[in-house]
Amino acid sequence: MNREQLIAAVKEQMPEKRWLHTLGVMETSVQLANRYGADPVKADLAAILHDYCKYWPVQEQAKIIRENDLPQDLLDYDKELWHSHAGAFIARTQFGIDDEEVLDAIRYHTSGRENMTLLDKVVCLADYMEPGRDFPGVHNIREIAEHSLEKALLAGFDTTISFLVSKGKRIYPLTIMTRNYLIKQIQE
Amino acid sequence: MNREQLIAAVKEQMPEKRWLHTLGVMETSVQLANRYGADPVKADLAAILHDYCKYWPVQEQAKIIRENDLPQDLLDYDKELWHSHAGAFIARTQFGIDDEEVLDAIRYHTSGRENMTLLDKVVCLADYMEPGRDFPGVHNIREIAEHSLEKALLAGFDTTISFLVSKGKRIYPLTIMTRNYLIKQIQE
Repeated sequence: MNREQLIAAVKEQMPEKRWLHTLGVMETSVQLANRYGADPVKADLAAILHDYCKYWPVQEQAKIIRENDLPQDLLDYDKELWHSHAGAFIARTQFGIDDEEVLDAIRYHTSGRENMTLLDKVVCLADYMEPGRDFPGVHNIREIAEHSLEKALLAGFDTTISFLVSKGKRIYPLTIMTRNYLIKQIQE
Repeated sequence: MNREQLIAAVKEQMPEKRWLHTLGVMETSVQLANRYGADPVKADLAAILHDYCKYWPVQEQAKIIRENDLPQDLLDYDKELWHSHAGAFIARTQFGIDDEEVLDAIRYHTSGRENMTLLDKVVCLADYMEPGRDFPGVHNIREIAEHSLEKALLAGFDTTISFLVSKGKRIYPLTIMTRNYLIKQIQE
């Protein structure tokens, strides 16, 4: 399946608004990859596929996680986390993507992880700051992204954590470990 | 060593201001214990000892953690977390306290833990809201404590997490697991 076919397949999985978001993440991922020295072709591919399962019924996402030995603890946390791991699974099994770097960037684009790769960071940050995003703090994230990938990502995770605290929602522990990791990296 | 002797020993370990805080935690712990059905005598004892090591040189606190098989990951996080575990160790070895419920309430009064006991909650919450405490949100915590131990404690941890986020400081993962546990308990 070539890039155009892949894009057509992705577009079918989501409402128009989310497709525009995907286009934004593609554009920003490639920009950030070029700015920070990640592979722009891999960034583009991960961005195309990152939200593939986002609008699937949550039960279907949960089923993929349950039946394919993906991290089971996800099911105990916010449904927003599920599509990333389910999406990486589908990218591999349905589209034959076997580049682990690309799969990881899809897999961890929501929670991040300790020791994130450059590509992980690029896609995760693009997801926060693509041009269509509009939430308190997004301008700040975009500004910081001009000079530091890690600091911009930290600002992104800070908005997520503050949002979850303000809503009384539980926080996926890996999100905190990611933030801790970024702070350590920035300090070093 | 009787209660008066113990109090005298604790008082010597800290500046006057912190001793007044300890007095406040003792008073509030006993109030909360009576309100929510914990053992007020145990609450009083844990409160007396909870900050025993707080003003010890951090290197001494770290040494206790390193040399006595206490959680080593603490040393990778905020020093504020160290005195709780060091304090429980000293309570046992120096003062012969062998009541695990009391020791746990000292041990977890800063981070909390999943499956906190009633006594853990009482001492941890008293530490947040004793009359001498003055930080944004403390009135709210005291108000909520009139009717829910768990909701008040959640509000307390929310202030801690928001503070750490605003300061760009790393967050001890157990603090997040504690908060997640409290939310689950409140929902059930």
